[in-house]
Amino acid sequence: VTPPGGVDSAPKIRIYVEAPLAPGTTQPIAAAQAHYLIRVMRLKLGDGVRVFNGRDGEWLARIDQVGRRGALLAIVTLLRGQIAEAGPWLLFAPVKRLKLDLMVEKATELGVGVLQPVLTRRTVAQRLNPARLRAQTIEAAEQCGRLTLPEIRPAREFDGLLSDWPVDRTLFWGDESGDGRPAAAAFATAHRPGAAFLIGPEGGFEAGERDRLRRFAGAVAIDLGPRILRAETAALAALGLWQAVAGDWRRQ
Amino acid sequence: VTPPGGVDSAPKIRIYVEAPLAPGTTQPIAAAQAHYLIRVMRLKLGDGVRVFNGRDGEWLARIDQVGRRGALLAIVTLLRGQIAEAGPWLLFAPVKRLKLDLMVEKATELGVGVLQPVLTRRTVAQRLNPARLRAQTIEAAEQCGRLTLPEIRPAREFDGLLSDWPVDRTLFWGDESGDGRPAAAAFATAHRPGAAFLIGPEGGFEAGERDRLRRFAGAVAIDLGPRILRAETAALAALGLWQAVAGDWRRQ
Repeated sequence: VTPPGGVDSAPKIRIYVEAPLAPGTTQPIAAAQAHYLIRVMRLKLGDGVRVFNGRDGEWLARIDQVGRRGALLAIVTLLRGQIAEAGPWLLFAPVKRLKLDLMVEKATELGVGVLQPVLTRRTVAQRLNPARLRAQTIEAAEQCGRLTLPEIRPAREFDGLLSDWPVDRTLFWGDESGDGRPAAAAFATAHRPGAAFLIGPEGGFEAGERDRLRRFAGAVAIDLGPRILRAETAALAALGLWQAVAGDWRRQ
Repeated sequence: VTPPGGVDSAPKIRIYVEAPLAPGTTQPIAAAQAHYLIRVMRLKLGDGVRVFNGRDGEWLARIDQVGRRGALLAIVTLLRGQIAEAGPWLLFAPVKRLKLDLMVEKATELGVGVLQPVLTRRTVAQRLNPARLRAQTIEAAEQCGRLTLPEIRPAREFDGLLSDWPVDRTLFWGDESGDGRPAAAAFATAHRPGAAFLIGPEGGFEAGERDRLRRFAGAVAIDLGPRILRAETAALAALGLWQAVAGDWRRQ
């Protein structure tokens, strides 16, 4: 279905770039992105794409030159002004690569603001590849229409996490003991504006970690139902539920 | 942490079997399951496992014999009586294999009752392998603690779906136009006891399909937020949200 004003007024294809975006400028894009646009999506000189960089909003651009090592985009007009998209944070014990890819992709679609790997005592060491994580967030942001990328923070130890925890953000943590508050009620009555979800590793938190979370005033134990959820399922269910009952899925 | 009564009172490993379960009986298990128990999980003669078949509750069993072609379990005592677990239905346009595996696994963890592939006009034909889908539901049910498997129904055309729709079940469908009701509010105020979620294919529903859904009294258009969700993300977000606000995540 062609939208009013024709396809060019809002081309479907969106790409993320690093550089500033301003009307009348041109923007070189690298070989991989050019390959995607020209070879995979079969765009031609003059065709439109949507471009965003996380800071300057979303722009209509046209393919201005195509060469062997990349292409050049001409930035035309602003389609959407920049917004903050300050989504909830996801704190997760690193999981295996395919599950991590999945969690990062889905969390980006669900509007996560910060991705923070956390090393708990039972976390099985996983090599984190920040470039790979970032590529996942870019692809998901391009596809889902976000104007920002989630921020990927370096991994940190659980033990230091609570000592500098921000006062304006509730740390919801998945409590598998059944003692947590039902998540929907906990989210709907949260007293702080921001939210973060801490999902434990396979095998759960250690007793000492649970005790520290229970005693921490900024934390709320939540219950995610009667079944044992895998870590990535729990993370995505918590994010979607938050957006629906307390976040940006509510009608503006 | 060893539960009261010792490890054997509730072994962690759960397996699904087909045959009836009753105390004092023995249960042959096939080579693949025996391999998993003996070689992968390193269980020995006399070790306990939990066994369920979707009908007779969950039983403590012990490994009674190990042979080349399988093993024999001795069924000991009932651990949990059978419950119905009548979860919401998921109606989905088949997606590619890895995404389908993921959707089936996560939907099982989130308590889905029925998995119904639906062929809409824009569905790109995908070969469905019912045995593979069933294996995914078994593995996920074993892991998450369910007492039942979701029912996998044969694929059907969208066009026939509404003609025999059950009167006691709301058909929530993901409306990408922005005209749907915010999902949390729609779920919290549903008038029928049962729920089903219809998730369209990549590319969405055709205009005629949308019109039929809009005119159908048993259907409610829902909105899943400002970002474009992939089909499997939408399915899992809807299922988790339903369980949290209207389903079995609410405190009993």
